[in-house]
Amino acid sequence: MASPVQSAAPGRPRDPRIDQAVLRAAEELVVEVGYADLTVGAIAERAGTTKPAVYRRWPGKAYLVHEAAFPDLAPGPAPDDGPLADDVRAMVAACRDVFARPVARAALPGLLAEVVGDPVLNAAVLARFRAGTWGSMHERLVRAVESGEARPDVDPDVLIETVGGATLLALLNRPDGVLGDDWVESLSALLLGGLLGPDSP
Amino acid sequence: MASPVQSAAPGRPRDPRIDQAVLRAAEELVVEVGYADLTVGAIAERAGTTKPAVYRRWPGKAYLVHEAAFPDLAPGPAPDDGPLADDVRAMVAACRDVFARPVARAALPGLLAEVVGDPVLNAAVLARFRAGTWGSMHERLVRAVESGEARPDVDPDVLIETVGGATLLALLNRPDGVLGDDWVESLSALLLGGLLGPDSP
Repeated sequence: MASPVQSAAPGRPRDPRIDQAVLRAAEELVVEVGYADLTVGAIAERAGTTKPAVYRRWPGKAYLVHEAAFPDLAPGPAPDDGPLADDVRAMVAACRDVFARPVARAALPGLLAEVVGDPVLNAAVLARFRAGTWGSMHERLVRAVESGEARPDVDPDVLIETVGGATLLALLNRPDGVLGDDWVESLSALLLGGLLGPDSP
Repeated sequence: MASPVQSAAPGRPRDPRIDQAVLRAAEELVVEVGYADLTVGAIAERAGTTKPAVYRRWPGKAYLVHEAAFPDLAPGPAPDDGPLADDVRAMVAACRDVFARPVARAALPGLLAEVVGDPVLNAAVLARFRAGTWGSMHERLVRAVESGEARPDVDPDVLIETVGGATLLALLNRPDGVLGDDWVESLSALLLGGLLGPDSP
């Protein structure tokens, strides 16, 4: 799991239990009250610590909440290089699972608004995603293009943005926020075969 | 161009010049101050009218701003049913053009946050998009599947969400907000041919 932003200040070693308690409190509270009404003070109180202790760890609410909402971005085991079709389906399903969790659904709209207005935050969020799951996806796709398993003109960055963006908009389009396995199959089939793809008459 | 939400109240016919002045004021102000700091009072003042006059026309800021940010959603001329590949490239380029305008970039993040928390607004925004450009796209894609031009298992709704979502995330990913024609070609190629598509070795 990625570390919180490190403070440059010298002093006693930080207590990782406080990091975890703050992240857990942020995760709970954003689901309970929504991003807009979430305050660092309330997070600190629920975590049994103080606002200054939170601000020593994270520059602000958005930096903290995006870590709480997306805790599973560590690279994890490398994709096992099964058939590309299987790996793409797994990639779409994993993206759906990450975005559809209550904490992500509660945090995402507010985070998107903040990211657009704050280039430093935007860069931090992107770097965290790229170092994590999306980085593994990128490597798998580059290998697929290199090995001839995928068309040579496919841009892995565009594919990853497409999976992420399609998931985001599909969740917004469905008030119940449910994206079933049929949706995963449908998007995967489109990305693998395209409109004019191999099964086209 | 779509009408503003109509008031059920009887009375004098509404003055369409006020509608237009309010929409134009909202468009200018959201670019100048951002969505979060935009107020209905400031919009009314710039438009030379009053807050009550605005609220007689739109239930609130988000309803007004989404019309100001996306004025071009009328169905327009039906796609001319050229080759599907050309129509898909035109669809991706049109979506890029709509989302990349300064007013849309300024309004979108705030609107997304409001849409998620407000099912009535969400339904109104989706209905407006579906009645406009996205409706024409949907018809074109349904015809392509029916005529055998596109694979029969392609879901037009998933394709439209994919184009919209990919565009949205690509804009967020690029702080300068520039999506060039190479990006349009790259996404179009992916959607048309897929990873394993006809040019695949």
